[in-house]
Amino acid sequence: MRIGVLTSGGDCPGLNAVIRSIVHRAVVDHGDEVIGFQDGWKGLLECDYRKLDLDAVSGILALGGTILGSTRVQPTRLREGVERAKGHVAELGLDAIIPIGGEGTLKAARLLSDSGLPIVGVPKTIDNDIASTDVTFGFDTAVGVATEALDRLKTTAESHQRVLIVEVMGRHTGWIALHSGMAAGAHAIVVPERPFHVDELTKVVGARFEAGKKFAIVVVAEGARPQDGTMAFEAGGTDVYGHERFAGVARQLAVELERRLEKEARPVILGHVQRGGTPTAYDRVLATRFGWYAVEAVHRGDFGQMTALRGTDITLVPLAEAVEHLKTVPAERYAEAECVL
Amino acid sequence: MRIGVLTSGGDCPGLNAVIRSIVHRAVVDHGDEVIGFQDGWKGLLECDYRKLDLDAVSGILALGGTILGSTRVQPTRLREGVERAKGHVAELGLDAIIPIGGEGTLKAARLLSDSGLPIVGVPKTIDNDIASTDVTFGFDTAVGVATEALDRLKTTAESHQRVLIVEVMGRHTGWIALHSGMAAGAHAIVVPERPFHVDELTKVVGARFEAGKKFAIVVVAEGARPQDGTMAFEAGGTDVYGHERFAGVARQLAVELERRLEKEARPVILGHVQRGGTPTAYDRVLATRFGWYAVEAVHRGDFGQMTALRGTDITLVPLAEAVEHLKTVPAERYAEAECVL
Amino acid sequence: MRIGVLTSGGDCPGLNAVIRSIVHRAVVDHGDEVIGFQDGWKGLLECDYRKLDLDAVSGILALGGTILGSTRVQPTRLREGVERAKGHVAELGLDAIIPIGGEGTLKAARLLSDSGLPIVGVPKTIDNDIASTDVTFGFDTAVGVATEALDRLKTTAESHQRVLIVEVMGRHTGWIALHSGMAAGAHAIVVPERPFHVDELTKVVGARFEAGKKFAIVVVAEGARPQDGTMAFEAGGTDVYGHERFAGVARQLAVELERRLEKEARPVILGHVQRGGTPTAYDRVLATRFGWYAVEAVHRGDFGQMTALRGTDITLVPLAEAVEHLKTVPAERYAEAECVL
Amino acid sequence: MRIGVLTSGGDCPGLNAVIRSIVHRAVVDHGDEVIGFQDGWKGLLECDYRKLDLDAVSGILALGGTILGSTRVQPTRLREGVERAKGHVAELGLDAIIPIGGEGTLKAARLLSDSGLPIVGVPKTIDNDIASTDVTFGFDTAVGVATEALDRLKTTAESHQRVLIVEVMGRHTGWIALHSGMAAGAHAIVVPERPFHVDELTKVVGARFEAGKKFAIVVVAEGARPQDGTMAFEAGGTDVYGHERFAGVARQLAVELERRLEKEARPVILGHVQRGGTPTAYDRVLATRFGWYAVEAVHRGDFGQMTALRGTDITLVPLAEAVEHLKTVPAERYAEAECVL
Repeated sequence: MRIGVLTSGGDCPGLNAVIRSIVHRAVVDHGDEVIGFQDGWKGLLECDYRKLDLDAVSGILALGGTILGSTRVQPTRLREGVERAKGHVAELGLDAIIPIGGEGTLKAARLLSDSGLPIVGVPKTIDNDIASTDVTFGFDTAVGVATEALDRLKTTAESHQRVLIVEVMGRHTGWIALHSGMAAGAHAIVVPERPFHVDELTKVVGARFEAGKKFAIVVVAEGARPQDGTMAFEAGGTDVYGHERFAGVARQLAVELERRLEKEARPVILGHVQRGGTPTAYDRVLATRFGWYAVEAVHRGDFGQMTALRGTDITLVPLAEAVEHLKTVPAERYAEAECVL
Repeated sequence: MRIGVLTSGGDCPGLNAVIRSIVHRAVVDHGDEVIGFQDGWKGLLECDYRKLDLDAVSGILALGGTILGSTRVQPTRLREGVERAKGHVAELGLDAIIPIGGEGTLKAARLLSDSGLPIVGVPKTIDNDIASTDVTFGFDTAVGVATEALDRLKTTAESHQRVLIVEVMGRHTGWIALHSGMAAGAHAIVVPERPFHVDELTKVVGARFEAGKKFAIVVVAEGARPQDGTMAFEAGGTDVYGHERFAGVARQLAVELERRLEKEARPVILGHVQRGGTPTAYDRVLATRFGWYAVEAVHRGDFGQMTALRGTDITLVPLAEAVEHLKTVPAERYAEAECVL
Repeated sequence: MRIGVLTSGGDCPGLNAVIRSIVHRAVVDHGDEVIGFQDGWKGLLECDYRKLDLDAVSGILALGGTILGSTRVQPTRLREGVERAKGHVAELGLDAIIPIGGEGTLKAARLLSDSGLPIVGVPKTIDNDIASTDVTFGFDTAVGVATEALDRLKTTAESHQRVLIVEVMGRHTGWIALHSGMAAGAHAIVVPERPFHVDELTKVVGARFEAGKKFAIVVVAEGARPQDGTMAFEAGGTDVYGHERFAGVARQLAVELERRLEKEARPVILGHVQRGGTPTAYDRVLATRFGWYAVEAVHRGDFGQMTALRGTDITLVPLAEAVEHLKTVPAERYAEAECVL
Repeated sequence: MRIGVLTSGGDCPGLNAVIRSIVHRAVVDHGDEVIGFQDGWKGLLECDYRKLDLDAVSGILALGGTILGSTRVQPTRLREGVERAKGHVAELGLDAIIPIGGEGTLKAARLLSDSGLPIVGVPKTIDNDIASTDVTFGFDTAVGVATEALDRLKTTAESHQRVLIVEVMGRHTGWIALHSGMAAGAHAIVVPERPFHVDELTKVVGARFEAGKKFAIVVVAEGARPQDGTMAFEAGGTDVYGHERFAGVARQLAVELERRLEKEARPVILGHVQRGGTPTAYDRVLATRFGWYAVEAVHRGDFGQMTALRGTDITLVPLAEAVEHLKTVPAERYAEAECVL
């Protein structure tokens, strides 16, 4: 068989592990040929590819990034390019395409699958917001990086007797905030799923100081927003520099909490460091298993599907189902976190 | 309510996180009182305990070890002590006991539960060998430590053009070997579930050298053994020093592989470093959730149960079921690993 | 003897290691008594202290922060308090005071020393800007944290084909930028000691893209500034939120480079994470040695001095000399870095 | 100019950083040509080399191992090969050779230098035993790895109420033991420079238990030996497996201490993990600076020298002086460590 692979969307620790696993399983066990498209869907549309043999994937298991590159392609551009893509697939004699990517990528995968291309997707998101899999690779690494930073910040917050508002990734969901906050013992966790009331947050943090503690750590997902009308809030996008996170939520919360608590409050924005670099062992194993099963699905002709983790098993779910809705933090998980903060 | 907690068995990263979580949930949310028995079952038998309030668990979330201490108590001693334990529970007015421990501890828990004590267990094992939960805390940290060591050893093996045989924990099951070996890209993984044939192992490693590679990493679980009659093998226990791992499997395999391959082969025994120190974020979250749900079970009167992870949910399983058999590496998981080695 | 210890200024990994070392050396070897003042000079002025015995410093060697707390005291307040401080020293029967702190603390130490108090200082700065010692504890940890972040950011910058401008600590000196930039193989390093010309920086980064590379990492110290008149630059302090780093140099450089290079450029501000948490082994050893020698100096009556590292030896230098000028990055060190970027 | 580079001896984190730095400095700044000999002196003797341009060293800064490979060549073989080496140098038109290696390599370098070849050495040793430089790259990483392991082992020792005897590298000198032991707060440190008396060691460890502590960590350098006649001691080399560390000092000490203290004592042998993998930031900076200055020395014609760190400066010392004697742990450094254990 001849299989095409591509990676699309933002960086995510474990992409290379998936690529390597696909090549090992396909080439060694099945005698397949594997090619990699350069820079995601763009490579497919422009027929920009290279052969992936064992040498090509040697030593990449623990490397962050993706040896295939990645760009975000506009959905409309892809929609217009379906015929071209199909043409290239025919031309190259491909029996299957395995796109590795997040929500946008999987939607595109579904589009191409619906148009008749043989596709098996591999889900990727550091945000943990793809509903039909227990978890995907990248999330564990992101949580680990954020937790390690929080561990360090605690001693500084304590030394300086400050409130630190630590902004972690998560535009639409609060999974990284929830898990890193629980792991590091944050004193409040603010997620997009539950618009916050600054009065309540002030009360929670204030209670700590009243109890004689000298510092507090608040973890806030970048997409968290105040309840309507409860706090002046400057949405992103107004930065004189044109940068989106100008008036990030951590920054604005720091101002509000400092004013209300009369304690020094400082924002810390962890940023891109959460999505790069060496994956954790957990993510490497999961990514490797996903690659393995994607090749299996190809050989069984199970197209239009995506690999997924359910418990300890890797299964397949229809792409249609995979992209139906975001997986948000449910109330009971938030409640768990709240009680042990 | 009044709840007693104890930790028993070998060290495992996350024990303190469970203790802290129990205290937070019980004291803050339910207004319970929590006491901690010193040194595991011994503390219960000798009525050696102390009160655990919020201050007592402050700052312990990320610490390895257990603030309650831990000793291994002989099952017979415990069996003889059942009446004494019941007496202390009555005397202290305890509504529940939450023992945190591995297979032995859970068996003891079942014994006490069967005798009428109100018990909710929390499973603990770095080996991942408890069947009725997807995973327990401690395993992720152990795999992470082993993987990091393997990452480092790779460059040395390559520089020295050697075969390194790296022995990881796992007396009865090969989970740590499987996951760390997959995560680090080991070239062979040897587990107790599949007695190895040294000829085959030699062939696998030899093939690498024939293909022009200059080194190999073999991960072997400490409990792995050769197929009967295939290799002279010295079982543990004969050490002139009285130490059990004298003639460990890695050491003996190194000798055999060196002789057969005519390449330098060296054993590396990772040892205790796998079971101590700061837990990973994954283990801290899981441990925290287990503690939370153990308290919930107590308040619902769900005794004779153990907390368990199923997918992303924490559930309860009967202690009877929990200790029925070891969870071993199934053939299909081993096959996955094999193909991407 | 009776010795008073205090920590003052910002958080710095290794403070607890110094405290522990002082107590061990003084109590165990010399039979001294040690007390710790709470929250820096404030504790001395307000006679707020506690006894430090072996138990008090047990387990703190690897902890970030300081068990004694730390606040910044205004120099004027301290100047007015000299007599009060002397009164407390007499009252408590102290034979020596060991303040551990940065430039401000050492200046205060000199003031008190000149007024007749028996003082041995221990230098502390993550910025490495104290001239009379080769290096102090805290710097190695800060460089390590920044380097690890840079390692991670590289794969993301490459995946996203971006320029990342990473702002590290260093208001007046570029040591952290220089060392972390060299260690991580940054493509440009911008330090306060050499006001940058944005045209030149654009040229350096642009040359990389012309050579076919797809990303670049620029490390910039927070105190770096453009050459006069070369770039509109908004100094700190104008933030509507009242926060000082509003228009930080990384943010402004990102805008300029994006506009000039027509490549996506993003700022990443590492912030407080550089100054907290567990110290590296290097910093623990240095901190421990400083504590040891400070006690030695006390016993030899060598007051008005500060411990210092010279090569592999710990020596003493007069406090007067220690605070004379900042240690800036010399031209030849910057040149070394430049050539291997 | 045309410069040949080679790496020789055991693995050491930072080798690739030196190679990269040499290439950057020589090629970019001086317009030189650089070639790398394969597998150390062997490559020079057999004229096995390849060109090293910027692409060849791209991305290797943080990698452990050496892209040039390394083998140990017998001194006699090298001595006999001097004329051949000189022939190859002439043939290849080399203006200088930069060997990077430890004591053996530097002795060989001196031999070749004395025979008239233009040589600038770069010292390499994780053991820190080269006398004429304050420190070399590799040592900081080894100490860091050992310290991290000791941090983890502490909680396990405490949980299990054991004495752990942790064997670190150091056949002839105790630098790694000293620094990792100080950094991790070990309770005893045993080095080759001071043959130990098992009675005294027992007393030191026993005193801890008498004081109510429940565990102890002893760090011992692999080359440490008992004082003559004080303890039955089995030297290396008698292993039925032919392995040298069969009856390692940690193993034998564990037996003795267990017997005398009546406490469980277990050996842990850290092994090769100390000499592989990613270098610390400290080692990367030092390695980079060494490479830079080696090229400078070549251009100034300063042959027969070795780069060295003195304080914060890189200098040159004659090869003759460099290999004169081992740098051992001096009594005063050992005394420092002792008091804060």
